[in-house]
Amino acid sequence: MSDAVDVGVALLGYGTVGSSVDRLLVDGADEIERATGHRLRVVRALVRDAGKERGFTARDGVLTTDFAAVRDDPDVDVVAEVMGGVEPTGEYVLELLRAGKSVVTANKQLVARRGAELFAAASEAGVQLRFEASVCAAIPVVKVLRESLVVSNVHRVLGIVNGTTNFMLSTMERGGTYAEALAEAQRLGYAEADPTDDVSGADAAAKMAILATVAYGSRVTIDEVECRGIEEVEPALVRAADELGMVVRLVGIATLADEKVDVRVQPALVDRAHPLAAVDGAFNAVMLQGDAIREITLEGPGAGGIETASAVVADLVSVVGTTGTGFLQNDACWRELDRLPPGEWESPFYVHLEVADRPGVLAHAASRLASHDVSVAQLVQRLGEGEATIELVLHQAPLRSVTDALAEIAALPEVLRVPFPLPVITERPL
Amino acid sequence: MSDAVDVGVALLGYGTVGSSVDRLLVDGADEIERATGHRLRVVRALVRDAGKERGFTARDGVLTTDFAAVRDDPDVDVVAEVMGGVEPTGEYVLELLRAGKSVVTANKQLVARRGAELFAAASEAGVQLRFEASVCAAIPVVKVLRESLVVSNVHRVLGIVNGTTNFMLSTMERGGTYAEALAEAQRLGYAEADPTDDVSGADAAAKMAILATVAYGSRVTIDEVECRGIEEVEPALVRAADELGMVVRLVGIATLADEKVDVRVQPALVDRAHPLAAVDGAFNAVMLQGDAIREITLEGPGAGGIETASAVVADLVSVVGTTGTGFLQNDACWRELDRLPPGEWESPFYVHLEVADRPGVLAHAASRLASHDVSVAQLVQRLGEGEATIELVLHQAPLRSVTDALAEIAALPEVLRVPFPLPVITERPL
Repeated sequence: MSDAVDVGVALLGYGTVGSSVDRLLVDGADEIERATGHRLRVVRALVRDAGKERGFTARDGVLTTDFAAVRDDPDVDVVAEVMGGVEPTGEYVLELLRAGKSVVTANKQLVARRGAELFAAASEAGVQLRFEASVCAAIPVVKVLRESLVVSNVHRVLGIVNGTTNFMLSTMERGGTYAEALAEAQRLGYAEADPTDDVSGADAAAKMAILATVAYGSRVTIDEVECRGIEEVEPALVRAADELGMVVRLVGIATLADEKVDVRVQPALVDRAHPLAAVDGAFNAVMLQGDAIREITLEGPGAGGIETASAVVADLVSVVGTTGTGFLQNDACWRELDRLPPGEWESPFYVHLEVADRPGVLAHAASRLASHDVSVAQLVQRLGEGEATIELVLHQAPLRSVTDALAEIAALPEVLRVPFPLPVITERPL
Repeated sequence: MSDAVDVGVALLGYGTVGSSVDRLLVDGADEIERATGHRLRVVRALVRDAGKERGFTARDGVLTTDFAAVRDDPDVDVVAEVMGGVEPTGEYVLELLRAGKSVVTANKQLVARRGAELFAAASEAGVQLRFEASVCAAIPVVKVLRESLVVSNVHRVLGIVNGTTNFMLSTMERGGTYAEALAEAQRLGYAEADPTDDVSGADAAAKMAILATVAYGSRVTIDEVECRGIEEVEPALVRAADELGMVVRLVGIATLADEKVDVRVQPALVDRAHPLAAVDGAFNAVMLQGDAIREITLEGPGAGGIETASAVVADLVSVVGTTGTGFLQNDACWRELDRLPPGEWESPFYVHLEVADRPGVLAHAASRLASHDVSVAQLVQRLGEGEATIELVLHQAPLRSVTDALAEIAALPEVLRVPFPLPVITERPL
């Protein structure tokens, strides 16, 4: 094989991910040439401080602090954006696309917030913008959705797309409080000192917005994702789930029903027999359900420097391998779909009631549910001292019917507390 | 979008899969045009009897019983082989490739047996031969291995790649004999009247040969796969596994170690916490372990007409989307790797001994294992009437050391029976 540089790659950023991309391109040069017929090499890397020590040493003259030197370098054919942030990153990416350079990005916030503008610029310039690494790192869910499932009519995407919260909830299953699980996640480096982005569901919401956009061909922004974090998950809920043969997980659910889209991230009860319940610790998994494929699940590490770099390299290879063909170079969005009113979203639900231990309370609650056409699949009542808890698993029903019935139940004098209803995810419909 | 036929597709075969491909191309024409810029339409379909009733009615003039009419039709750009069998299918595919037509095949026997010859013909003619549908139907494991994991140095592929045996072993877990599980699989249509191909492991061996070839870039034929079926799996083994927190599964294992390849299919004990243990009934799953990705698991339906057709269409789309680029048009094989001598293959193993209940037998067995440097991770002894069973889980060791020790143990007078050792698959190394 020749040693010529056919394709010049620039990196925006040369931190953990960027230097790993450089190393993978060097170590995997032969594999890439076999796949694409081309040799890829990093010729420019934009950094803030060119003198800083780095894990993988860039070749002389590659590091630069001057964005214009990257944008205007005629040897740069394709750029990998691995610096993160929305500003000035978004402007850089726009300028690069307009300068006729294809871009690969690992930046979920950028894609989830400024996707419309960026893809329009790419289409106008006739170049590609790829973003596999922006969702679940090395798990190739974007490629599978866009290429392998092109005619599968995917109508539901279920995802465990945040490893921090999955680790924390798995930890709580073995006993312990939310605070203890968070401390353990921080100790092991799974959670940041400020864990808000993970535990609030915001990180998962950005990923689900991108996945829904790709799956349904209609732009979904992060602000349109119904989002609830795991801060309210208590050990009692984890134990109650366990007794029902389920686990509590932060689940992203993107639904296409009657040409309307619903995307949400929230704690849910997942049946132990369901593939998502088996997702271990900090791993991620995405389940794609469609007409022609029933369901396909992809599972793997959803974060990490080398894992993210692996997805960036795969995108670079795909850009090189499809340039000039028209293959997947258009925006993934081609239609505008209405949003499903959140109350019309349907699911089986789990509800936990705390009630005074008085005769008739169960009958009252059941009649309120029945009056909203919500039927009960499973019921467990437990007695405490003068108090009782009632655990209900409800058959599939619109969210609005469940919340309306619960509002009436909460108004009953013997009902002490009604937390929010959690969706229940099972193998077979409830 | 225009209504022009840009790309003419021919089908070899118009049964369940072929007619589903036709339907998916019609129903998904807009999706495909958005992805590739082209409209695909079936213009020819080779059948044995053009008058037969079909699930999806082909347009007039499409069905033909004359292979030459397909091969010589200038409107045919790409061909999907969905007729099955090795002869005359292999000759047809060769002729088509030589005539300059790219081919997509769903035929694992053809790829596993005649791959070398077919890929050479494709390379020589400068056309593509794709085979996603030949392994695990709609699960896009070939595309993920070749494109997404191009620089990941995959070194281990674990697969549950036969749904029939997975269903049968799952069924035996809930009680019942091998014969009962087979009858149930036949009743539900998961097993053929003659189940040999599934239960002997031959079907799984063909798939593992193809996966190993793609993963390691070195041709592995079906005859090189060490293969043992599930016919010897008894309820006692399933129960013993259960007591160890494991399940019995037919597992394909392809290993690359020190630039040597080992591919095997055999019953194994899989830890309940391992993702492969959660694979439900007739589903398939493939786990890919590599340097840059740790492990990625893909799970889904491994068989079925529409599921297979979905993968065929994805390959057609990929052919159209990459023609003219050099992307993945070469053979997946680029090197010749030696085979690992089977005895050097290493794994943790499970061993079940039936012994006379006499003092010292355990010590004798343990000393035989120790003399071959095989150490015991877990031991359960159970007493019957004058007899006892000893269940051993052994730490990772070369297969040869284990079989040599077991041969010595079998020769002890108090040992009644020593079945073959089963590999043990756990999340964490034993």
